[in-house]
Amino acid sequence: MKFTAKVTIGLKEGMLDPEARAIQHALANIGFATEGLSTARVFTITLEAEDRAAAEAQVEQMCERLLANPVIHRYEVEVLA
Amino acid sequence: MKFTAKVTIGLKEGMLDPEARAIQHALANIGFATEGLSTARVFTITLEAEDRAAAEAQVEQMCERLLANPVIHRYEVEVLA
Repeated sequence: MKFTAKVTIGLKEGMLDPEARAIQHALANIGFATEGLSTARVFTITLEAEDRAAAEAQVEQMCERLLANPVIHRYEVEVLA
Repeated sequence: MKFTAKVTIGLKEGMLDPEARAIQHALANIGFATEGLSTARVFTITLEAEDRAAAEAQVEQMCERLLANPVIHRYEVEVLA
């Protein structure tokens, strides 16, 4: 069966996010004041799997082994369909 | 009033996504077959605005002027709270 999974990968709470600070600074330079800004990556993956649980397990493994750095990142896997 | 907006920025339909292809290739190298993979960036922005519509308009402007490249990117703005 074909499944689509959405993976959201962001920095763990308390981690410095220099990219977000730089973007916030650039937005301020062109006149947009923001109180906070955080960034995250989203991967939408289509894969074959036995069932929904197997799809979720596979995508979790993809995160652990490649997509996310377990030291600094937190990730969320959502099997859509 | 304080609002939180979520901005999702991805490539327009039909645009080549070399990063996604490279990730798909790397996943295959470690044994994960995928049928499709796409990437997107998500910004969560906290800002002050008169009302919800004003917050949405401000964030749309941020996308148009800095966060997204209107030529290759499509973006979605969602004012959460």
